[in-house]
Amino acid sequence: MQIAIVLFDRFTALDAVGPYEMLSRAPGAETVFVAERPGPVRNDSGSLSLTAERTLAEVSAPDVVIVPGGPGQSDQMENGTLLGWLRTVDATSTWTTSVCTGSLLLAAAGLLTGRRATSHWLALDVLTGFGAEPTGERVVVDGKYVTAAGVSSGIDMGLTLLGRIAGDDHARAVQLLTEYDPQPPYDCGAPEKAPAAMVEEWRAKSRFILR
Amino acid sequence: MQIAIVLFDRFTALDAVGPYEMLSRAPGAETVFVAERPGPVRNDSGSLSLTAERTLAEVSAPDVVIVPGGPGQSDQMENGTLLGWLRTVDATSTWTTSVCTGSLLLAAAGLLTGRRATSHWLALDVLTGFGAEPTGERVVVDGKYVTAAGVSSGIDMGLTLLGRIAGDDHARAVQLLTEYDPQPPYDCGAPEKAPAAMVEEWRAKSRFILR
Repeated sequence: MQIAIVLFDRFTALDAVGPYEMLSRAPGAETVFVAERPGPVRNDSGSLSLTAERTLAEVSAPDVVIVPGGPGQSDQMENGTLLGWLRTVDATSTWTTSVCTGSLLLAAAGLLTGRRATSHWLALDVLTGFGAEPTGERVVVDGKYVTAAGVSSGIDMGLTLLGRIAGDDHARAVQLLTEYDPQPPYDCGAPEKAPAAMVEEWRAKSRFILR
Repeated sequence: MQIAIVLFDRFTALDAVGPYEMLSRAPGAETVFVAERPGPVRNDSGSLSLTAERTLAEVSAPDVVIVPGGPGQSDQMENGTLLGWLRTVDATSTWTTSVCTGSLLLAAAGLLTGRRATSHWLALDVLTGFGAEPTGERVVVDGKYVTAAGVSSGIDMGLTLLGRIAGDDHARAVQLLTEYDPQPPYDCGAPEKAPAAMVEEWRAKSRFILR
């Protein structure tokens, strides 16, 4: 089973590494980071580089595709090479997935039309513009399309998908080995849990970021 | 504020990227990945490479030190260069921290003697051998030493520390932006929550892994 994780300039690191840490532990998984060009790819803050081992062209039929998000997603929305690759690999993939604003790239490729999906809470409206049906859920499974909400939700997506791929017992063992028993020190991780002023502040800022 | 994250061969990616994603969002933070040699460093599965931008020698006085764990930790337990660097930077750090078996490296450097600390649940006994006092907590703060349990607990550690460094309001905003509202699909993320047979199976296997 080949798992391809797409990298692009200014991706968000945890979007990619969260599901990676879960799904790369599937029995027989071969995980490969791919990008238009091989080599180090810088994240949104510029201080982290993950290596793309292969080009998109070199990975033509992965079983699982994972598209992370991040501020750099907006620069890819009209990238025909990437969107064309997503359409091509989706034709034979078993699972096509995203984390955060990665779902906007799946949507721009035309893969989420008429489907239930999610994205970062600040980007749900953009999803609607592409004919997808955003939900408030953290992980959305619609057929073979699995989309996750913002950044850290990719861990929940990865573990959910690992259960589908390798069975509940294997997924539980991976949860135990990665000690995924979260205990956030605050309870402010979703817009309905955060102070209204904080939510509004970020909605206002995001109008200049998301498109 | 400079944050140094240590990389070594066969580290676990989420150990490093979890706290990175939280702490790199502190105001004025400069985050740098460091290793004995600069360049790509491979993780435990071999399919992921994070770039070390600087050598240990080039980063001599970080404010925050983060030591991830992973299977490769055992090869570093007598690495005088790394352990010596940990002792040197600890002399002037504001916070010295670890995730997973990274705490064994802090312990081997003599930094946790007599301190409350934690590690991956399979490694807590090893911590005792170095004179530390392991606890069952997910994140342990003892003075300036902050240790986290296995793999994914580095996110909770990072957010906890971000609150101390940048204030609760900033930490809450980062929790909201990273949508850290975890909803694991299983409840098997700690040994006391997992089936006894699963815990015993991994305890038996770990006797050959940890030292």
